[in-house]
Amino acid sequence: MYRPEIRVVDCTIRDGGLMNDHRFETATVKRIFHALAEAGLDYVELGYRADKTQFSTKDFGPWKFSDEEDLRKVAYECDTKVSVMADVGRTDFDDIIPCDQSIVSMYRVATYAKEIDKAIELGDHIKALGYTVCVNIMAVSHVLEPDLDEALTQLATTNFDAVYLVDSFGYLYSEQIQYLSDKYISALPGKEIGIHCHNNQQLAFANTVEGIIKGINYVDGSIYGMGRAAGNCTTEQLLGFLKNPKFNLRPVLDIIESDFIEMQQDLKWGYQIPYLVTGVLNKHPRSAMALMKDAKGVTYGDFYDKLLSDEEI
Amino acid sequence: MYRPEIRVVDCTIRDGGLMNDHRFETATVKRIFHALAEAGLDYVELGYRADKTQFSTKDFGPWKFSDEEDLRKVAYECDTKVSVMADVGRTDFDDIIPCDQSIVSMYRVATYAKEIDKAIELGDHIKALGYTVCVNIMAVSHVLEPDLDEALTQLATTNFDAVYLVDSFGYLYSEQIQYLSDKYISALPGKEIGIHCHNNQQLAFANTVEGIIKGINYVDGSIYGMGRAAGNCTTEQLLGFLKNPKFNLRPVLDIIESDFIEMQQDLKWGYQIPYLVTGVLNKHPRSAMALMKDAKGVTYGDFYDKLLSDEEI
Repeated sequence: MYRPEIRVVDCTIRDGGLMNDHRFETATVKRIFHALAEAGLDYVELGYRADKTQFSTKDFGPWKFSDEEDLRKVAYECDTKVSVMADVGRTDFDDIIPCDQSIVSMYRVATYAKEIDKAIELGDHIKALGYTVCVNIMAVSHVLEPDLDEALTQLATTNFDAVYLVDSFGYLYSEQIQYLSDKYISALPGKEIGIHCHNNQQLAFANTVEGIIKGINYVDGSIYGMGRAAGNCTTEQLLGFLKNPKFNLRPVLDIIESDFIEMQQDLKWGYQIPYLVTGVLNKHPRSAMALMKDAKGVTYGDFYDKLLSDEEI
Repeated sequence: MYRPEIRVVDCTIRDGGLMNDHRFETATVKRIFHALAEAGLDYVELGYRADKTQFSTKDFGPWKFSDEEDLRKVAYECDTKVSVMADVGRTDFDDIIPCDQSIVSMYRVATYAKEIDKAIELGDHIKALGYTVCVNIMAVSHVLEPDLDEALTQLATTNFDAVYLVDSFGYLYSEQIQYLSDKYISALPGKEIGIHCHNNQQLAFANTVEGIIKGINYVDGSIYGMGRAAGNCTTEQLLGFLKNPKFNLRPVLDIIESDFIEMQQDLKWGYQIPYLVTGVLNKHPRSAMALMKDAKGVTYGDFYDKLLSDEEI
């Protein structure tokens, strides 16, 4: 697939940070940013911009907060731009400096559909500071259709740049991705649509490709799929699929070998049976993450039966 | 998806045997067959029927040969039928006893397109003995379209039961699966079409679902994806997707936990960067399997560059 409008956003550090409380070494993040710049990525998302009055720097590493000075230790001015994610309700508006004073180019506002008004308020604030603004409507597989339609109608009136289709629970199959891609594209004329998939059912890459076929131009990947629970579509697969000559797969393969094989064995994101179970059942992965950390004698089969009967684990 | 015509064929022992020289313990295979029978599988493929004058029983375990007495140690008469694979050129016709004396119900003849005449000869022989017969045309991503068309035309004249679309190298994307599914279905009226995918690009399940959407009714899976190199579509994902109430996911989850997690860590089938590289480049996985066994200092990046320039590794 070669369509020059396609933008690849790597979210390894941001989404992967959910697996290690955002505690990546500065040197590691620096190496990753450089590899992704060499690979020709459009954006690298380096973390969340969480409010320090709500979250302690003792409990989380620096990429939960993405202070300007930390970002500048690892990123540099080049064709690969820096992105940061701001969660609705967890962001201090005053923490965001004007774009022309920051190394950040793009903010992604993460919201549930029910909080779309707050997302638009935050997005308007960030947009006025000069940034590219995306809104990521999370967990779309739990949103009632009229609520989604209303959120998209509201977003259509904004001057944001892109809106993301986000399959947080790794539940959606290709036909649902096709349906939702069409919906987002027709509801949001003039805006780019993005897609962010989780890999619970090993469908993250396949569904991202379906989105691309439908006309989605912003695609998320992460190195070796690192991300919460089952992780994401892999950046290396996106680069293997996209034929734009500006992309170069080799630096990503090199950094997987140097940094990610061992890390995956330790943190165990990816295709794991507990994550498959929550994906198939369209559930938040938190119970599966707890099981992966400490099974307490609960077998895969017990876990499946309990979730099937809607019991709490 | 609920379509009662769909038949799920588990090929864990047969395809997985390519990762351990077919050396599964009898007790393990017995446990696996029982779990798959409890799960409601239609077929369990227990091995190859290789010619002992060509392959030594010293070099390979029993599931390379699938002697009737070995099959009867692990399988029993029930709704779950036994399948065996016969490779063209590696099978002694006289090794195959009449169906009414055997626990085997189905033979799958594995062939390259160029050997389709030999496959038809072998299939005719097996069909005359009373078995259900499938022909699996391997490595379809390397077959020229006129050669494939000719093979399908020849197969249309046989009385075989099913013909398989086989993506041996894990190279195909959804649009190619859709195209080939249409081709097989229209070329083979009155026959069932099957699909067998490899997971080099994490597309085995997604592509199998595409095949099902197109009307393919025979689908292959293996437990925890166990199979050559990147392995196969997982049986547990197929059972999670198919809504036929005869299927039961739990016995498969239980046997994954008891038998497959450790085995996978030892044999390392599944999503691995060397297998991704051969998949993206539409190559046989043998060079990647050699690299996984002993890298001899060759990095992932070197491997990619060498395959890209068509050098031998």
